[in-house]
Amino acid sequence: MGLFSKDIKTMNDLFVHTLKDIYYAEHQIVKSLPDMVKKATDSSLKQGFQSHLGETKNHIARLEQVFKLHGVKAEGVNCPAIDGILEEADEIAGEVEDKAVLDAALIAAAQAVEHYEMTRYGTLIAWARQLGRADCASLLEQNLKDEKAADTKLSSLAERGINAKAA
Amino acid sequence: MGLFSKDIKTMNDLFVHTLKDIYYAEHQIVKSLPDMVKKATDSSLKQGFQSHLGETKNHIARLEQVFKLHGVKAEGVNCPAIDGILEEADEIAGEVEDKAVLDAALIAAAQAVEHYEMTRYGTLIAWARQLGRADCASLLEQNLKDEKAADTKLSSLAERGINAKAA
Repeated sequence: MGLFSKDIKTMNDLFVHTLKDIYYAEHQIVKSLPDMVKKATDSSLKQGFQSHLGETKNHIARLEQVFKLHGVKAEGVNCPAIDGILEEADEIAGEVEDKAVLDAALIAAAQAVEHYEMTRYGTLIAWARQLGRADCASLLEQNLKDEKAADTKLSSLAERGINAKAA
Repeated sequence: MGLFSKDIKTMNDLFVHTLKDIYYAEHQIVKSLPDMVKKATDSSLKQGFQSHLGETKNHIARLEQVFKLHGVKAEGVNCPAIDGILEEADEIAGEVEDKAVLDAALIAAAQAVEHYEMTRYGTLIAWARQLGRADCASLLEQNLKDEKAADTKLSSLAERGINAKAA
């Protein structure tokens, strides 16, 4: 990204830029999840992170299909938002010793990641439709559906016992 | 925050830490919104940002009530997540020249902020209830309700014309 130039001229440029942003974010998430699997104590949570790692790899593959359909090379751009969210997740995990409290903190951190992805996919779907790319929108919708399901699953793990164990 | 100590021992410590995180975030948002008001072209969007600035100040006041009820001094802690989200918003806005495309980019940036707040308030409400602080949960729920409404309003502004103008 050229910070001192005006590189985004059209809605299409904005769509492609944001696609690259979430592509970078999904890669960073793939790098972070193994550490979350390792840190989690509750077996359902550990397994949840493990299966989300597989899903995240599918998301990357779907994004590559979107790039291809749209005729653009698949590549990432720096995304300070996901970097900040993951940095905060790492910091907080480093400050918690008790395993049950750590599980609660990991859920909160993962939900912040899911919400970032949900907002970006929501935006990309609306823009893809506006640009007449129903084919791209449909792939992006599948990713969004997974992120929403992952968020709901994390809430239910928290409510079904992890928060109570921590408190 | 002490990065090399384990400062968070209990669920209550985690709750207070996250309260300080969102308190810092709301302050950063108050600082950023006037710039978004200035950059927005669509009059409904400009007005939406302006009214959200007022709401955000109310959120800070409500958080101060939560700190007070919980017997903790109101203060912020660094929050790399919101810093990253706002940095990205600023970067993207700096790269867009066309006013209609900039409005679409500003909506996306603001929705990323709303989603961050929604996830943090959702977590804090669950933890407050777990800790037996229904009084705190009820105040936090009012903030969450506003953030959700702001997000819905932004989606409807995008869909009711801003994206079409930009495309």
